[in-house]
Amino acid sequence: MRTYLDCIPCFYRQALDAARIAGADEIKQKQILDKVSQLIPDFPLEASPPEMGREIYNLVREMSGVKDPFKEIKENNNRLALKLYPKLKQEVNNSEDRLLTAVRLSIIGNIIDYGAKNSLNVEEEINNLFQGNFTTNSESSETMFKYKKLKEALNKVNSIIYLADNAGEVVFDRLLIEELVKELGKEVIYVVKDKPIINDALINDAIFCGINEVAEIISSGSDAPGTLLKYCSGEFIKLFQKAELIISKGQGNYEALSEEDKSIFFLFRAKCPVIAKDIGCNLGDMVLVGR
Amino acid sequence: MRTYLDCIPCFYRQALDAARIAGADEIKQKQILDKVSQLIPDFPLEASPPEMGREIYNLVREMSGVKDPFKEIKENNNRLALKLYPKLKQEVNNSEDRLLTAVRLSIIGNIIDYGAKNSLNVEEEINNLFQGNFTTNSESSETMFKYKKLKEALNKVNSIIYLADNAGEVVFDRLLIEELVKELGKEVIYVVKDKPIINDALINDAIFCGINEVAEIISSGSDAPGTLLKYCSGEFIKLFQKAELIISKGQGNYEALSEEDKSIFFLFRAKCPVIAKDIGCNLGDMVLVGR
Repeated sequence: MRTYLDCIPCFYRQALDAARIAGADEIKQKQILDKVSQLIPDFPLEASPPEMGREIYNLVREMSGVKDPFKEIKENNNRLALKLYPKLKQEVNNSEDRLLTAVRLSIIGNIIDYGAKNSLNVEEEINNLFQGNFTTNSESSETMFKYKKLKEALNKVNSIIYLADNAGEVVFDRLLIEELVKELGKEVIYVVKDKPIINDALINDAIFCGINEVAEIISSGSDAPGTLLKYCSGEFIKLFQKAELIISKGQGNYEALSEEDKSIFFLFRAKCPVIAKDIGCNLGDMVLVGR
Repeated sequence: MRTYLDCIPCFYRQALDAARIAGADEIKQKQILDKVSQLIPDFPLEASPPEMGREIYNLVREMSGVKDPFKEIKENNNRLALKLYPKLKQEVNNSEDRLLTAVRLSIIGNIIDYGAKNSLNVEEEINNLFQGNFTTNSESSETMFKYKKLKEALNKVNSIIYLADNAGEVVFDRLLIEELVKELGKEVIYVVKDKPIINDALINDAIFCGINEVAEIISSGSDAPGTLLKYCSGEFIKLFQKAELIISKGQGNYEALSEEDKSIFFLFRAKCPVIAKDIGCNLGDMVLVGR
């Protein structure tokens, strides 16, 4: 997906939020925003938003001197989500369509996103899951929720590349991966980011959340908030190109890969009006698109 | 009020919205945003937000070649509000406390604001007024709604300087001014902006909405979206300094004058989180503060 002009105010908001989370004082925060102002005019709109995201969060890391500003947030979200695991697993076990429930949970887990929205009360949002059942109105649109197509695609493949998004959300991914591996007999490779970027999952998050018990975990080699192939390792690119089917989590990965000519299913919550407009859904919708 | 760093993403959003309303194409919109990026680093945070607002909207006018991008919007809002006038007047006539109702209506009219929020459905918001009565929960806080203090202040003066905010909203101001003039016997001078700035009321808007029937209308001499004294005419500054009591409408005027050592009552809806935080109220609150 290209960058829209509406992304520009949002880049500033993200820079400011990240600078604050990194503990930068107001003078440093202003210096970071001024540096963003130097970058923006040269940023080509044909590039996808995670390209700028990568530059902005690198800037915050460098200028604040904090290598992983979201470390504590990621650890808290991992712990919080792991505590939910038994309850979530029971939801899958009790459901008529295990895979559908796991897909839904995986999308629901994508609320844990600090790039798109900074004031998330993850705990509250997750608790809301258990008020009533999982069917949401926003899921009703056939175009946006291509579960049948995903099921058909799964029937045809042996292995899946699963692109992770955020820490904490990993636990929700685990539930889906368990279905893919244990119930459907697929092989899954779980791909995380290489270096700290926002609250995106890294290898240690994947291990902490127990992915290593069901899937191989690798790094994409990239430090962008979205799997931008040009920043990925040669090893990952080879894997990507050979992949039979890709499950891609989160907005950043959608932005980075929406124009790739591959069999990719994108699972995420539409948390940004630009993306919602790009795919033609409502803000907040649970999205499952792809082919 | 000083500028906060959170205002910076909002400056970009405002520039983009105004560029679009002015009919600029995407290339021109980007050029406008790039120009904003050149201005921001030199903008002192001690200055109040309308200082930057003034520069941004001037930029949009110059670069788009459209002198008054909000002209049509202003005319529509004037017409829409005038159509409501008889109904609103009846509300005042039927109320136990005419002045209180008129004050409330004047604050309610401040929803007609394109700087703070671009997607206003003014018609819908105004229609909502007539669903139920005017008492809102958000008005209950004593600190934020100093009606008694305003009444005491009014008792002590003969004349009032009334600083206008937006076109359309002028009709709501007229209801309050009619109470001040016809019921309380005060003299009112209604102050509008000198040149087009966002959807702020100009002299022709004030006349169209019938203010000339109850008050003298003058221009402040300023083209900032808030009465920044340094851009005002000598004539207005003299008037301001001699004023017994000032009623100031809208966020822009609050931002511009909140630190002035004068008897000013600020009436507005808190439509921006930074201002809400600055005065300690909730977003969306009806605000009446001052002394």
